[in-house]
Amino acid sequence: MNDNRKHIEVCFTPGEYEYFKGEYDIVVVIDVLRATSAICAAFDNGVNSIIPVATVEEAKEYQAKGFLVGAERKGQIVDGFDFGNSPYSYMKEEFRGQDIVLSTTNGTKALSIASNAPTVVVGSLLNLDALCQWLEEQEKNTLCLCSGWQDKFNLEDTVCAGAISEYLISTGKFTSDEDSSIAAKYLYLSAWVNPIGYLKSSSHRRRLKNLNLNEDIKYCLTPNQTDVIPILRDGKLVKL
Amino acid sequence: MNDNRKHIEVCFTPGEYEYFKGEYDIVVVIDVLRATSAICAAFDNGVNSIIPVATVEEAKEYQAKGFLVGAERKGQIVDGFDFGNSPYSYMKEEFRGQDIVLSTTNGTKALSIASNAPTVVVGSLLNLDALCQWLEEQEKNTLCLCSGWQDKFNLEDTVCAGAISEYLISTGKFTSDEDSSIAAKYLYLSAWVNPIGYLKSSSHRRRLKNLNLNEDIKYCLTPNQTDVIPILRDGKLVKL
Repeated sequence: MNDNRKHIEVCFTPGEYEYFKGEYDIVVVIDVLRATSAICAAFDNGVNSIIPVATVEEAKEYQAKGFLVGAERKGQIVDGFDFGNSPYSYMKEEFRGQDIVLSTTNGTKALSIASNAPTVVVGSLLNLDALCQWLEEQEKNTLCLCSGWQDKFNLEDTVCAGAISEYLISTGKFTSDEDSSIAAKYLYLSAWVNPIGYLKSSSHRRRLKNLNLNEDIKYCLTPNQTDVIPILRDGKLVKL
Repeated sequence: MNDNRKHIEVCFTPGEYEYFKGEYDIVVVIDVLRATSAICAAFDNGVNSIIPVATVEEAKEYQAKGFLVGAERKGQIVDGFDFGNSPYSYMKEEFRGQDIVLSTTNGTKALSIASNAPTVVVGSLLNLDALCQWLEEQEKNTLCLCSGWQDKFNLEDTVCAGAISEYLISTGKFTSDEDSSIAAKYLYLSAWVNPIGYLKSSSHRRRLKNLNLNEDIKYCLTPNQTDVIPILRDGKLVKL
């Protein structure tokens, strides 16, 4: 047993982050449906940077300055904004090379509360393998911060965090201590055969389905579509 | 599909209770290791009532009045008190017919925050079947409130909550909507073949093992040792 193993732990909600913070070199912010998936899709499409903002008010200020600004609340585009957090919004030609601003219900809130950590990166199922390999190379104490849904536990973020944990533990360089991390790993192991089937009962998936976002859901739940790892630098997400 | 089905949901920690409260007729407070297990053991042994108090200060006040008072913090008996939350403490002859007072790290805190719910009962693996049957008969919206460990998610409480959910859903009279409830059910289903083996990696179990509480752990993780259902009435737990 390697005693120098680093920790890979899972925090289920932004509200619980206060019990974890300060102990981790790297925080991976996860909001599978859909903010961090959309962010990965945007960088894959050549966006230059994304400024995550916590409130709609901040988003409006950036809009007044002429930025391309997206805002989503409760699964829908906020009135007065051009896009929300559908990954497909970010695949347009006009987004390439741009600096854009984004505010979402859960994901950008999680990015905001994690912003004081030494290193903050963005995780989703879309960049899973690339992210896992990079985290393995860093070999630092790592926390997966799930965005949840309105401060409650969320199944798809936890399964993604469990996938990251399981990979890192399998390298022999990492270990988990927290019960939340152990549970995330178990949930991932029972989900992985068929993630879309497994998550069909997820409350958030049902919520999005009611908004006719099935294409978004299918895209966000399909692993390894990109190698990009968005990283937070001076309040801005850029491509690593 | 029965549209009149009641809800059985799971709240992972006392800190998240604020997002659930007010919507449930019955709250089941769970602290498998060890407060709610000890409470079930106490009533099984003929204790008359248990007054749960949140703070050590309140516990001391009752001690001054001549009550039998237990207090536990971080797995150990608090200095100046005669017992903590080991179920074996409550099996003594001298406890029969007595009114006792108890303050613990997590369990009595959860009881305290749930105390305004219409009905509050105590759940553990020890009274699992009796509790499930009673909840089925009540057929009301029910929330399992896990006590967690120092405000963090806890595996054994969640597995117990998942067992209750799975039973109630299987009756066809209940359904679950929250992702936390779905996760608890999955965790229970993967744990149930061998709960002690499954929970061997649990952080709290490891913590108690370091305090040489293996007999307590084995007892608390052995389901269906009693039919008692402790219920909160006017701030006091009594046998239903």
